[in-house]
Amino acid sequence: MSFVIAGGDAAGMSAASRAKRNKPDLDIIVLEQTSDVSYSACGMPYNIADPDREIDDLVVRHADVFRKSQKIDLRTGHRVDSIDRNKKTVSGTDLKGRQFSIPYERLLIATGASPIIPDLEGFNLPGVMALKYLSDGRKIKDYIKSQNVKKAVVVGMGYIALEMCEALRERNIEVDMVKPRQVFIPWMAEELSDVVREEIEAHSVGIHMGHRIEKIMESGSNSLEVVCSDLTLECQMVLVATGVKPNSRLASDAGLDLGPSGSIAVDRMLRTSDENIYSAGDCADAYNVITGQKTWVPLALRANRAGWAVGDNVTGKNVEIEGIVGSAVFKVFDLEVARTGLSMSEAEKAGFDPVEEVVKTRSRAHAHPGSKTLYIQIVGDRKSGRLLGMQIVGKEGAAHRIKAAAVALHQKMTVEAFSQCDFPYAPPFSPTWDPMLTAAIQLLKKL
Amino acid sequence: MSFVIAGGDAAGMSAASRAKRNKPDLDIIVLEQTSDVSYSACGMPYNIADPDREIDDLVVRHADVFRKSQKIDLRTGHRVDSIDRNKKTVSGTDLKGRQFSIPYERLLIATGASPIIPDLEGFNLPGVMALKYLSDGRKIKDYIKSQNVKKAVVVGMGYIALEMCEALRERNIEVDMVKPRQVFIPWMAEELSDVVREEIEAHSVGIHMGHRIEKIMESGSNSLEVVCSDLTLECQMVLVATGVKPNSRLASDAGLDLGPSGSIAVDRMLRTSDENIYSAGDCADAYNVITGQKTWVPLALRANRAGWAVGDNVTGKNVEIEGIVGSAVFKVFDLEVARTGLSMSEAEKAGFDPVEEVVKTRSRAHAHPGSKTLYIQIVGDRKSGRLLGMQIVGKEGAAHRIKAAAVALHQKMTVEAFSQCDFPYAPPFSPTWDPMLTAAIQLLKKL
Repeated sequence: MSFVIAGGDAAGMSAASRAKRNKPDLDIIVLEQTSDVSYSACGMPYNIADPDREIDDLVVRHADVFRKSQKIDLRTGHRVDSIDRNKKTVSGTDLKGRQFSIPYERLLIATGASPIIPDLEGFNLPGVMALKYLSDGRKIKDYIKSQNVKKAVVVGMGYIALEMCEALRERNIEVDMVKPRQVFIPWMAEELSDVVREEIEAHSVGIHMGHRIEKIMESGSNSLEVVCSDLTLECQMVLVATGVKPNSRLASDAGLDLGPSGSIAVDRMLRTSDENIYSAGDCADAYNVITGQKTWVPLALRANRAGWAVGDNVTGKNVEIEGIVGSAVFKVFDLEVARTGLSMSEAEKAGFDPVEEVVKTRSRAHAHPGSKTLYIQIVGDRKSGRLLGMQIVGKEGAAHRIKAAAVALHQKMTVEAFSQCDFPYAPPFSPTWDPMLTAAIQLLKKL
Repeated sequence: MSFVIAGGDAAGMSAASRAKRNKPDLDIIVLEQTSDVSYSACGMPYNIADPDREIDDLVVRHADVFRKSQKIDLRTGHRVDSIDRNKKTVSGTDLKGRQFSIPYERLLIATGASPIIPDLEGFNLPGVMALKYLSDGRKIKDYIKSQNVKKAVVVGMGYIALEMCEALRERNIEVDMVKPRQVFIPWMAEELSDVVREEIEAHSVGIHMGHRIEKIMESGSNSLEVVCSDLTLECQMVLVATGVKPNSRLASDAGLDLGPSGSIAVDRMLRTSDENIYSAGDCADAYNVITGQKTWVPLALRANRAGWAVGDNVTGKNVEIEGIVGSAVFKVFDLEVARTGLSMSEAEKAGFDPVEEVVKTRSRAHAHPGSKTLYIQIVGDRKSGRLLGMQIVGKEGAAHRIKAAAVALHQKMTVEAFSQCDFPYAPPFSPTWDPMLTAAIQLLKKL
């Protein structure tokens, strides 16, 4: 059987490795348009923060390792342009402009996602950059160095924007952040997002919300201006971090069904609407376990897991992926920011009758030195009593703690049952009642 | 209705406060033999570590606060000696030696646990001390200061022994630990307990296992000798931390049923075998959710939770406590050590067919700076595929991470379902696949 994979990043290479391990004699061809196939994309901001580290430190496995050790026919510099579902072929172009056409029995579309670049004047200027591919990371590092960047503007305030804001401050670059919406982190409970905002402002970052960006202009040799309706920000570099969109054109051109946000619709076995074509990773949709509805969440674990499942399924294992619960975490300066499940508005949209509680507690026991403030928002459903979501912000104990709530969401636990959990206690790590229990108990009074 | 509580520590005061909040006109009498009713007992080692802090910093609420603000009739210095179940009275003695007898309609026995002191020569010498009550903490601090202690021996290697070992090293006191058994931490997977041992030895602590202690002798004015069959350790202070036993004599004398380790048997509503008598806290037993069997685990969260439930139940709320899963955590020097669920031998004893896997992973993503080694042991049941337990040891990310496994145990999740959990990922906090997922996936191959 021949298994062709369009896109050799997290999902594609996971699928290839897994399938090869399951069935060593399987013909696998991976077609990847860049030259990088296995690297820690999420690690780029932290690498950019450190001028002494090479961007290639982020490479987990070089293409040649897949070729030589794993015997995978990995063709980098190969872009797939179209799929012919009748003939069962994919066609494309290599780096030298040569056309190719390859037959498949099973195809995986793992083309990922691309940064959304506003269609405005000046977003194609040198010094205006997005961060998605390893080559972007390299370009940004080189630019900071060669242009001796002292001042940058970050457009957007999502995860990558916030992580890059920290990275640039680490490089001692002045940073302004700007976006059109008035709300800082829309999915976050206001008390918690205020804490994040204060942390960022405490690191001398300008936060400019509610400013529609009109254009970016060159001003002098090594200088740019981000021009908003009522504000102009001067800088030497602009980082565009206004979100990503699924690379689903291949699939839509081929007539495959699409899901939320234009992602490729797949079932729990990662099959598209064509039984011979799978999709996985940032280009594909997923089930939300809490709502039972389709969702699109381009995050790394999901991509790896889905790729792996495709590798199993093309080799006859029939693996189903349960779905996601909406977990995410990021660090910004000294703060851990974590979420799992639904926000209040997401819960309302999904048809729940959500109630929230926000508690401000301590990260360590009474009188234990070094205690930090911990903020928890918890969301429950008035009708069923179910736990629907949690957000935690604090200088310690947020990122790992929230995994307990993620398990509870997978299990559709009630807030009451969650409040009964036996969480371990020692003074350096929490009060006797873990703050998540305190939050659950407080919420119970409202349910 | 009159509600009498024998023992005013975590469980007793939780019950009193909760009952009073539920029903302000309830007559509550709390009889406590010491003068301290609400303090962070688990915080004592950390307080002892710091000569500049007062032990009273650990007091969460003074007796007078309960008396004045909460209108609870709290009688400190009152020891309960016996229960007359027919007459429904408790009798006892106050600090001045006066007898008292008090009628009850509902009684809570919350007498806690006491340190086990070996019945050997010299364990009553000055300078030989256990750590249980606030007065013990005060005594130890005073002794270290007044005797200018430079060298101590810790007898035992449980949680308190290890925490005290760290505390004494913080005070720059030389420490030797000694115990008769050859196994360092019996419930812990060997690979993990080796890591704990190395951490302790790296802090210049002598660990002496397999030495039966024969006696403690005075040697000179300010010096003691801990004499073992084949080893003599010289010191100025001995800390006896060889475990605790439930204070259940009151209950057994009154003919109430006992549970594991001589603890007081209670049902999920915390009722003893006498319908008018409850028991909660370190003196009472509990259900283990994983095995469905009774267990005795004297830990703080359980005591607070059970006390609270008694407060609800005496005021007509009918609350049931699901039980514990066996979660515990401690810090020793720079190491976090956490467990939840069953060890291999506990699982075997409970009738499971357990299989374990130990993984050695990293606490942060590939190429992320500051990453530490993380060790995870995971136990599953071959017959049912259920997750049975987890242990984590590492310099970061052990204490909070394990709460996810605790939730899974409450929910009787399979290892397979657990391996599907959507845990949030960012490079500063974990590899893309959280180490718990890696451990679960590895274990699945053996199940």
